[in-house]
Amino acid sequence: MTGVIRILGVDPGSGATGWGVIDCAGSRLSFVAAGVVRPKRALSRAERLAAIHDALASLIAAHGPHEAAVEETFVNASPRDALVLGEARGVALLAPARAAIPVAEYAANTIKKSVVGRGHAEKAQVAAMVRVLLPASGEQAADAADALAVAICHAHHRSALHLKVSA
Amino acid sequence: MTGVIRILGVDPGSGATGWGVIDCAGSRLSFVAAGVVRPKRALSRAERLAAIHDALASLIAAHGPHEAAVEETFVNASPRDALVLGEARGVALLAPARAAIPVAEYAANTIKKSVVGRGHAEKAQVAAMVRVLLPASGEQAADAADALAVAICHAHHRSALHLKVSA
Repeated sequence: MTGVIRILGVDPGSGATGWGVIDCAGSRLSFVAAGVVRPKRALSRAERLAAIHDALASLIAAHGPHEAAVEETFVNASPRDALVLGEARGVALLAPARAAIPVAEYAANTIKKSVVGRGHAEKAQVAAMVRVLLPASGEQAADAADALAVAICHAHHRSALHLKVSA
Repeated sequence: MTGVIRILGVDPGSGATGWGVIDCAGSRLSFVAAGVVRPKRALSRAERLAAIHDALASLIAAHGPHEAAVEETFVNASPRDALVLGEARGVALLAPARAAIPVAEYAANTIKKSVVGRGHAEKAQVAAMVRVLLPASGEQAADAADALAVAICHAHHRSALHLKVSA
């Protein structure tokens, strides 16, 4: 495992929270796992947040990432929507922090630029580039592909960030 | 303890999160404890959220509330500020939900109306009425008094809400 850094990327959302785990050995990236947490709509807001937290905590325990990265949600939203999005985002930041995993944050445009080369890429272009960069990832749901893009972005930026690495 | 319901009120904020615990036996309210969680500013956003979560989880374990209530943060804010506030709020909703405690939410005006009798009361009036309703609470920091007001509001509304009570 020497030299291999495992990264968890998270794309938080009030309805669906995408997650993706990759390994990064120097500039070599490889797919580990990805998925989407979709709490049942019948749950209360607090219960949905607990479902997101528990799912992230379980997959952190299962995959043991060394570092995490969360998308800085786009805030071209009403204050009310931003508040609800912030709730999911708070939980996405909290779960790795509680496991003592350093968490980086990237703006959506930074992520697109890192993966596609342009800050204003379409969602489909991001997903296509994720498949090119991580062939083993195959077809992923849009939110899972976004989360893998967050992880890839962090792999590209992390050496410059001098993050504490627990590996 | 029969008939006594212990309520945790939380007033989440990105800098300071107030909390207050009261007991409610019919219409009789009594003060149990209150305080403010102020994560160190040197911490990262994720670490500050973890500090809020861990403090709330500890006081839930210590005081064993049956129900919780969280202030629905006022959203007369920029989307950016609402997002950051939402992060703290997500954690405030999450901590009781993870302990299987039902969480109610009240708008700021509902809380003021419940405690002072008017939806547009000043902060100082709320604090003064909290001292009248809970004499044992004494002088509390503003955020702790606000959290006690949230708990009082829930005590006034809970019977009408038909919440599941685990007592």
